[in-house]
Amino acid sequence: MSLLDQPHHDGSPLYVDDEAPRLGDTVAVRVRTTAADPIEAVWLRTTFDEEPVFHPTTATRAGDVVWWEGALPVHNPVTHYRFLVVRGGDQTWLTGAGEIGHDVPDAHDFRISAFPQAPDWGRDGVVYQIFPDRFARSAQADEHPVPAWAIPAAWDDEVIFEPDDPRTPLQFYGGDLDGITEHLDHVAEVGADIVYTTPVFPGESNHRYNATTFTEVDPLLGGDAAYERLSTAVHVRGWRILGDLTTNHTGDTHEWFRSAAADPTARERSFYYFEEDGSYACWMGHGTLPKVNHGDPDLRAAMVEGKDSVVGRWLRPPYDVDGWRIDVANMTGRLGALDVNHEVAQAARRTAEALREDPLVIGEHNHDATGDVDGDGWHGTMNYSGFSWPVWSWLRDPATPARPFGRPVKVPRRPGQAVLDTFRAWHGALGWRATTTSWNILGSHDSARIRTVVGSPAVHRVAAGLQFALPGVPMVFAGDEIGLEGVNGEDSRRTMPWDRPEAWDRETLATYTALAGVRRERTALRRGGLRWAHVDDDALVFVREHADGPVLVCARRAAGPAVTLPARALGASHGSHLLGTEEGGGDLAAHGDQLVVPPSDGPRLDLWALA
Amino acid sequence: MSLLDQPHHDGSPLYVDDEAPRLGDTVAVRVRTTAADPIEAVWLRTTFDEEPVFHPTTATRAGDVVWWEGALPVHNPVTHYRFLVVRGGDQTWLTGAGEIGHDVPDAHDFRISAFPQAPDWGRDGVVYQIFPDRFARSAQADEHPVPAWAIPAAWDDEVIFEPDDPRTPLQFYGGDLDGITEHLDHVAEVGADIVYTTPVFPGESNHRYNATTFTEVDPLLGGDAAYERLSTAVHVRGWRILGDLTTNHTGDTHEWFRSAAADPTARERSFYYFEEDGSYACWMGHGTLPKVNHGDPDLRAAMVEGKDSVVGRWLRPPYDVDGWRIDVANMTGRLGALDVNHEVAQAARRTAEALREDPLVIGEHNHDATGDVDGDGWHGTMNYSGFSWPVWSWLRDPATPARPFGRPVKVPRRPGQAVLDTFRAWHGALGWRATTTSWNILGSHDSARIRTVVGSPAVHRVAAGLQFALPGVPMVFAGDEIGLEGVNGEDSRRTMPWDRPEAWDRETLATYTALAGVRRERTALRRGGLRWAHVDDDALVFVREHADGPVLVCARRAAGPAVTLPARALGASHGSHLLGTEEGGGDLAAHGDQLVVPPSDGPRLDLWALA
Repeated sequence: MSLLDQPHHDGSPLYVDDEAPRLGDTVAVRVRTTAADPIEAVWLRTTFDEEPVFHPTTATRAGDVVWWEGALPVHNPVTHYRFLVVRGGDQTWLTGAGEIGHDVPDAHDFRISAFPQAPDWGRDGVVYQIFPDRFARSAQADEHPVPAWAIPAAWDDEVIFEPDDPRTPLQFYGGDLDGITEHLDHVAEVGADIVYTTPVFPGESNHRYNATTFTEVDPLLGGDAAYERLSTAVHVRGWRILGDLTTNHTGDTHEWFRSAAADPTARERSFYYFEEDGSYACWMGHGTLPKVNHGDPDLRAAMVEGKDSVVGRWLRPPYDVDGWRIDVANMTGRLGALDVNHEVAQAARRTAEALREDPLVIGEHNHDATGDVDGDGWHGTMNYSGFSWPVWSWLRDPATPARPFGRPVKVPRRPGQAVLDTFRAWHGALGWRATTTSWNILGSHDSARIRTVVGSPAVHRVAAGLQFALPGVPMVFAGDEIGLEGVNGEDSRRTMPWDRPEAWDRETLATYTALAGVRRERTALRRGGLRWAHVDDDALVFVREHADGPVLVCARRAAGPAVTLPARALGASHGSHLLGTEEGGGDLAAHGDQLVVPPSDGPRLDLWALA
Repeated sequence: MSLLDQPHHDGSPLYVDDEAPRLGDTVAVRVRTTAADPIEAVWLRTTFDEEPVFHPTTATRAGDVVWWEGALPVHNPVTHYRFLVVRGGDQTWLTGAGEIGHDVPDAHDFRISAFPQAPDWGRDGVVYQIFPDRFARSAQADEHPVPAWAIPAAWDDEVIFEPDDPRTPLQFYGGDLDGITEHLDHVAEVGADIVYTTPVFPGESNHRYNATTFTEVDPLLGGDAAYERLSTAVHVRGWRILGDLTTNHTGDTHEWFRSAAADPTARERSFYYFEEDGSYACWMGHGTLPKVNHGDPDLRAAMVEGKDSVVGRWLRPPYDVDGWRIDVANMTGRLGALDVNHEVAQAARRTAEALREDPLVIGEHNHDATGDVDGDGWHGTMNYSGFSWPVWSWLRDPATPARPFGRPVKVPRRPGQAVLDTFRAWHGALGWRATTTSWNILGSHDSARIRTVVGSPAVHRVAAGLQFALPGVPMVFAGDEIGLEGVNGEDSRRTMPWDRPEAWDRETLATYTALAGVRRERTALRRGGLRWAHVDDDALVFVREHADGPVLVCARRAAGPAVTLPARALGASHGSHLLGTEEGGGDLAAHGDQLVVPPSDGPRLDLWALA
């Protein structure tokens, strides 16, 4: 049986009539099955104040497809549901992780949320992540004096990247905000329209995650005026800009911490977790990064609550950011027995929504964000677990020098089925809304570069194709698009080689441009459902479906034979080639009821418009 | 490869040095693997304020077994952990649901809780559930006048059980508390030592879940004095007694509700959820069961908070209950956007712990109690999802007239593997502590009787064997032990046929007695770990392991061949037969490295002491 013949539901418009209902609404939800499947009944099960309740569905046959529709009461702010599929004496559950032949807990239930969803721009756009010290130096950059803590580097110097080398955070290349503003045409070429910079607050490091203040933009970056120029230039293009805020900690050179450490009676003392002996809680044991205490109302007001908080102030002119990427969002407000994480996330979002019409708040979570998203806190997360690691685990070069991020051993190289199982597990756990609003990242300033992980341009472009074709918002870490390398996060912070055209992989850049273009043109790639069509060790085939027309995607990590798919299960008789990451690639061949994906002699990713 | 060769960890003492640590402790945790498994490393992964952290483990070989030990910091009140098992280029995760070859979210992580655990008696005991109207009439019962609402029935009358028959809740047999007290020898024969009665508050129904007051015991049951006699008699035997409290709703005849409904300015008005038009929230649409508002501090004080609350008052003399079974615990404090369920559970537990040295608070949850247990709220749940349904789905008679409970179609009959997968999914989701503290029930006053579900005495005894041999606290619904029948919850509330010895299945009763005895004698059955040893369609074999000596269990739903197990993986060279639910059953045969479970010509469950 084809994967396409499996009963299917997801949170996309073909399956859910209203993806943003209000509490108390009733929403029609549908399951798609194949007419050949001997299903007698499909029941919609929801939980109502945690009590399971079953609702009937009504079947409608449309050719080879049967649609089972039920009415889902949106009784709780995040309402759980799943389907019971009855065949003869047996029953299966259709959950967000697929069809399951035994009884399982609710962790993979479908979910519909009555909380407002992320703004359209935050769902449809493409994010470009910039690490300011390494992106570009404007002419004015030479005017900024090198600070005392810094180890100056020339633009083309090699990056010092060993985490235990004390020079690593101090090596200073002097990229600045006007440098970014000058290169927005490049961002446009990548196809991105959301500029996200890592922190721009002053901090005695090149990464600036150890802020010394939140009241101004680092003068080394050009200061407030440069930020205003960048923000304006971004907005003039109709784009958006996101800030990066560490709500979990500050630097130990931060004005709050200096005051708190110097005087136990200072107002800021309770902003941190000081013990009686003067020790204090900090991020992962790093004394330079003291953890802030969100149990303290004053700290919360200073950081996230209200228009004069850090969160609020930057959302207003002159900075005018459209939202935030929150650093270490997973640990924020959590320490031992204390957990006010959700309250902090709520406050940040509430602050943003009070000040802007359509803000976006993304929380960094390099692990399992289930429960922290889908509600009234973070709109989504940087989806390492649900996107990066399965892609890495399918595509990694066995001989890569890339180092793992967040685990003590390298991500294994796995066959397609294990990767599909991983995608399904995470899609099920995060839910449709959070998955589609979260960022599909191939890496970041914290991890190895995808090019280094996969070891070849062609496989890199397959990874990029998955980033743009699977549900989720692509986030491109600046430099990925031209094939920069890096074995770990620090090494990945290499400078953009503006003056070294020979260092640019322009073929890969063209692929990014094309992928962003096809995503922009095809609703299915931005808003469509996801049905898996075929999996083998070296190929993943899936279809993104929307009323505006479906798109079939075949990703191959290696050479492989033709893949035959049942045309009836795709509801299509032919497929026109839209884009291939490598040369070649024709239309899908039609043979009676079969649509044939052509064989390949190497890694490639293709997209076809089905009709 | 035998199931026994899979890497294993659970929350039992062989694997966790301290199952009740304090916050800040470090606890040694161990994984057991087989020496033939080419494992290079096992990493302990925990989450620290939601950040994944890896700790190394150290391997120690003991014969054919390798133990990998790591130090787990108990940083959060409920600390998650799992293990990364590294073999060559691949890695697997060892979680509470078993070993998994792809990456998965945290839902099945092992958990260790720094909250106090349930008292020993609540973990080691056997619960006997009594529905007072149907259990026994004392001589004094004739003195209680039949109330106006009731439809009197003679003790041997057939039960009216159709849910839509208005007579069903009104049919009144007149069992009373002194009737229970008179039959404690029978409870002793079953082997139980915790008496749990469904509600004893007055209510205008035979089930009394629609209380009219919480201030006294129903005079129809003998009133407060009869309760005191029962409680005293139970305690004299060294046993425990549990009350049953509906914290979710009252009856519409309750004094609070009468007052609230009559006068919008009454103090009790805010005890309920009244709309402006006088309508009110109620349980599952039943207007006779108005839902109480735990958002109201006065209601919470009246119901669960403090020594004068309902929860508190009954824990004190003269009632002197040892704890509570909380009805509809899943919905309590939850209504649409409101969710104070955890606060209510915390309050109930705090109240109990302030008044008694070792109280037990069990929450009814017929669904997924994950997240509601393991902490500082309910100690455990009535484990329908993690015990009843998998057992029913393995053992049900295809032709049973038994009706499902909580789903619109009958529980399917499934092969052993699907049942094992279900057990694993629920053990993983609930976690070890909550699984072992929750009640293994084969049914209750809300469901069909197990005898009716499985259709034969021999299969019934297999079910009982699982109830006593799998992790969890057995709860026997009075009458199950003598083979009473019932197609649904109402039908299951048949009277105990004290005067009709021909209606007693004494063979089954003897099996219950023996099972309770072996559970009492064998630490492994109460406190031991659980490793699955073999599964096929018709057989489930597992071993409960403890330093006091392991017990092997083979459950068969039908005739089947001998099962050969690797002796080295059991760490045993022979097994002495302890108990069989059917006649016959010898020691395990040893053939070199193999231990052989004898074949069977029908359903049976056997236990062996391994050595």
